[in-house]
Amino acid sequence: MGSRPLVIASGNAGKLAEFDQMLSPLNFSVKPQSAFGVVPPPETGRTFVENALIKARAAAEAADGPALGDDSGLVVEALDGRPGIRSARFAGEDASDEANIDRLLVELRDLPEERRGAYFYCCLVLLQHVDDPAPLIASGRWHGYILEARRGDGGFGYDPVFHDPRMGATAAELPAGEKNRVSHRGRALDRLIKLIETA
Amino acid sequence: MGSRPLVIASGNAGKLAEFDQMLSPLNFSVKPQSAFGVVPPPETGRTFVENALIKARAAAEAADGPALGDDSGLVVEALDGRPGIRSARFAGEDASDEANIDRLLVELRDLPEERRGAYFYCCLVLLQHVDDPAPLIASGRWHGYILEARRGDGGFGYDPVFHDPRMGATAAELPAGEKNRVSHRGRALDRLIKLIETA
Repeated sequence: MGSRPLVIASGNAGKLAEFDQMLSPLNFSVKPQSAFGVVPPPETGRTFVENALIKARAAAEAADGPALGDDSGLVVEALDGRPGIRSARFAGEDASDEANIDRLLVELRDLPEERRGAYFYCCLVLLQHVDDPAPLIASGRWHGYILEARRGDGGFGYDPVFHDPRMGATAAELPAGEKNRVSHRGRALDRLIKLIETA
Repeated sequence: MGSRPLVIASGNAGKLAEFDQMLSPLNFSVKPQSAFGVVPPPETGRTFVENALIKARAAAEAADGPALGDDSGLVVEALDGRPGIRSARFAGEDASDEANIDRLLVELRDLPEERRGAYFYCCLVLLQHVDDPAPLIASGRWHGYILEARRGDGGFGYDPVFHDPRMGATAAELPAGEKNRVSHRGRALDRLIKLIETA
């Protein structure tokens, strides 16, 4: 049996490599959307799943075949779910990670640890074709809390202030392999693979 | 601990009773959206999950609290996923079950059994509040194939022509209890309950 082509609706090289590694045993041949000239569409959804669908649909349309979209971010309970789908632009359009973290720390200022609960969330959507009415959907959460100051040099985004008490480390202090094992994206990908195997 | 209110974004009495029965052990107190004057919103999504979200969002907004939306339909492989989200209006707006089944049988005319594969699909979306960016999402599939003629008097929709080879019966021939155990909605609800328990 030949491998099945699958377009990844992302331009992020790290994500592409991770998806390739996890999905090639399932006989998928992963391709970046840039190979099909996809222009990233505006993320107009109000939820992660809607934005993942928007991305997957643009890629499925351009490639005329199956496509995987993802969307992820940080959900802070004391902020009613913010920054949520606006995680990458919490401090404004094209804001830096530094500026986004600064805004988060200001909004949570003076809150005690037990009120700083948060989780990273990742949603993956696999469309068989652009008009697929029933895409496979898998999500993962990574629970922790927001520190009052940064710790660690790895990762990206909010990683330096996201502390996982079970790991005893921030997301920026974990080696990449360990992070992928416990992270929101790693869990979502594990679940998507189970769905592919049983669908 | 008092029970948590949960609005069901449906006017269907059968669904309400089923959700109530399954969710009350989880300490939810289920209420119909009619209690909050919700007008069913237009289902403008291109996937079941988008329509379930649209319904849940309207109910969460009206009730100012958690809401559960669902959307379901029949996905026929030889028809590239149709009738899909248009299952209830396959033969036209406000079409009867009879007319929808007739159209399906015409579209599949002369196809042999091995090309008549189909599944019922149900998507459930639980929003904590109207701006929840990361709703719980659970889906279920019920695989079978489409007969060339109706069999059985129970159920509704496409049930009389949907045959489950493992059960040796059409969906319209199964007693309600048995149907709920193996159906797309039953499976989706089982999975949603697992998500609620572990989220």
